[in-house]
Amino acid sequence: MNDSANVIVLGGDGFCGWPTSLRLSSEGYNVTIVDNLSRRKIDVELGCRSLTPIETIERRIQVWQEQTGRTINFVNLNIAEDYHQLRDLIVELQPQAMVHFAEQRAAPYSMKSPKHKRYTVDNNINGTHNVLCAIVESGVDVHLVHLGTMGVYGYGTAGMTIPEGYLNVKVDIEGTDHQIEIPYPPHPGSIYHMTKTLDALLFYYYNKNDGVRITDLHQGVVWGTNTEETLMHPTLINRFDYEGDYGTVLNRFLVQAAVGHPLTIYGQGGQTRAFIHIRDTVCCISLAITNPPAKGERVQIFNQATETHRVRDLAALVSQLTDAEVRYYVNPRNEALENELVIRNDKFMRLGLNPIRLSEGLLGEVVDVAAKYRDRCNMEKILPSSRWREDIPFDREGSSAPQQAVLA
Amino acid sequence: MNDSANVIVLGGDGFCGWPTSLRLSSEGYNVTIVDNLSRRKIDVELGCRSLTPIETIERRIQVWQEQTGRTINFVNLNIAEDYHQLRDLIVELQPQAMVHFAEQRAAPYSMKSPKHKRYTVDNNINGTHNVLCAIVESGVDVHLVHLGTMGVYGYGTAGMTIPEGYLNVKVDIEGTDHQIEIPYPPHPGSIYHMTKTLDALLFYYYNKNDGVRITDLHQGVVWGTNTEETLMHPTLINRFDYEGDYGTVLNRFLVQAAVGHPLTIYGQGGQTRAFIHIRDTVCCISLAITNPPAKGERVQIFNQATETHRVRDLAALVSQLTDAEVRYYVNPRNEALENELVIRNDKFMRLGLNPIRLSEGLLGEVVDVAAKYRDRCNMEKILPSSRWREDIPFDREGSSAPQQAVLA
Repeated sequence: MNDSANVIVLGGDGFCGWPTSLRLSSEGYNVTIVDNLSRRKIDVELGCRSLTPIETIERRIQVWQEQTGRTINFVNLNIAEDYHQLRDLIVELQPQAMVHFAEQRAAPYSMKSPKHKRYTVDNNINGTHNVLCAIVESGVDVHLVHLGTMGVYGYGTAGMTIPEGYLNVKVDIEGTDHQIEIPYPPHPGSIYHMTKTLDALLFYYYNKNDGVRITDLHQGVVWGTNTEETLMHPTLINRFDYEGDYGTVLNRFLVQAAVGHPLTIYGQGGQTRAFIHIRDTVCCISLAITNPPAKGERVQIFNQATETHRVRDLAALVSQLTDAEVRYYVNPRNEALENELVIRNDKFMRLGLNPIRLSEGLLGEVVDVAAKYRDRCNMEKILPSSRWREDIPFDREGSSAPQQAVLA
Repeated sequence: MNDSANVIVLGGDGFCGWPTSLRLSSEGYNVTIVDNLSRRKIDVELGCRSLTPIETIERRIQVWQEQTGRTINFVNLNIAEDYHQLRDLIVELQPQAMVHFAEQRAAPYSMKSPKHKRYTVDNNINGTHNVLCAIVESGVDVHLVHLGTMGVYGYGTAGMTIPEGYLNVKVDIEGTDHQIEIPYPPHPGSIYHMTKTLDALLFYYYNKNDGVRITDLHQGVVWGTNTEETLMHPTLINRFDYEGDYGTVLNRFLVQAAVGHPLTIYGQGGQTRAFIHIRDTVCCISLAITNPPAKGERVQIFNQATETHRVRDLAALVSQLTDAEVRYYVNPRNEALENELVIRNDKFMRLGLNPIRLSEGLLGEVVDVAAKYRDRCNMEKILPSSRWREDIPFDREGSSAPQQAVLA
């Protein structure tokens, strides 16, 4: 049914981008992946690799074609640099939608050093701005679907339910109350998160001045690894990050359990985070594409998360499931010790999302994947090597690992 | 009294930067100008020049030394690119304050083409981010004083008095009102203004995570050209922009009157803007430096403007003063036809600012400067050549000037 519609997936070789590309291809879209393979190059820089053995993008696409008869195109370009190629591609393909995953997406990586801070800002902001500028210059009415993060809201919002992007407030002006709607005030907790709050202003401006149709997805922490499509053939397997920079908390715990490493809690594990399974991620992207904002409508914001959990509760759950030990470390992040988090996600629920819950057995699937590839795990890379401020103590002089905490 | 204090002025060769550098030097600060001379290069690109004949930065500094015995240092570097040089300079000088003017500052220039949009975003965001990143890496407790714009508030705020950066609002959460203070919601009207709203988020983050002390000055439209210091010798004269990209509205009218060009009103001239004289600008910067926020305090925001006027009222005033004709053109900007603007500027007033008013005779000084250098004016460059959207009509096919409007 979507056979004539082109969709460009920026960052389509990554953890969310690859399974999304397969899902959209299987739904009948003509998918073109644009990626400069930066995530694979960062693996080289960090001296680690996906726990799962991922194939080259060319081989992945070839096997997808063999399995399904469907073609995915691949263009290797850097959206933050190769502006004219990007613009010409939009003119050539006249895509119905562009899905934008092409940003440096790890908070710890963005905090490693001045070089990493600067790379993250330069790459993410110029990348997103080039996409918007190229859409306007092309004259094509593209719907831009951007992967944002729940982290733009901040986690210090005790008692306030987080709405989907906008907040209704009353302002007292010389004695008279006015009711206005404002973008939810941003509270970024890292350089990475900051770039996503900058993105939001780029979207706001290009939507207002040029009428670009934009959906911004404020996504929670993704867990799980495979989707229906990546399970079709071993060569289609998705990447799985477990190390201190790119490994997200629940997946990291599951690998730690599988390889016999203690579960690493930073601080007291009082952080409450929003979560979503990778299968729901691809489902949400597909729903977003089929439900664009109307021409002239403001930026559409969805909260893309299905449940919230406290980190120490997750550790307890995984420990119960696997008998893993739990160990506490000094938190390398500059954040509240404890936070509540209540979010709305009505929009995707109304569109028919049927969320995968943590308790529904898919934890076991991740444990199986982790166990299967445990020999590929580099134990040296499990602890984080970034810290948010110079005055946060490391484990020992010369170490780049956080200090193990002695809790009373 | 400030003899031991170093101050770095980023962009110290520009319209606001140069007179500020002289003022700070005369007050006893050891001033180092950092500038890559980009504004002079843009003059070359646009085929125009300052109405006033400005000397090289080296010659300017030399004459300043001859006149006052005070040394100003000059370092030619690009803060958006030469990160390590910038960081090393901070470490070497241990400045008390850095004043940051080093951004592309013309809205029309930022809208000329995709290339100019991309340059403005890349230059301004990487520049500001490098400054913040370098301050943190240096470990020096620098007070950063940034030149922002009133334009970040937007001009669609009918009936709402604009406070100084923050807004008190009430939020209704499940039936209970909470009072919170939020950053004033940004409403950028051009790519240039958008970069200033991004800057604000960079400041918010680096202040929160790293405790950088920051003052952000939301400045109005600057008029006038000379200050006490630039009048000390002809070689110290300040630049004066009159053309369609960099010429700001009141200065542009005064030059138009001096050279016999009709006063160019875009739209109906119903735009209300905030203004400040260049002499008050340098006074405000000096006040900001001597009144830094305390360590640990949030970003300090001042509205740096002394009065507001409607554009067509300014044109009438100049027309009355000079007999110039007023002519209306299609507005190349995407903005409201008419807007009210009421701002607070209590903070600078409390610190002792004694504003120069439009009616106080300094208009005549500008007319004199314009008349003196009228032969240097390039009449071809007076009309703007940028437009905010492709569907805004130009004067005629192939023209880059806006259409002259026929008003009923």
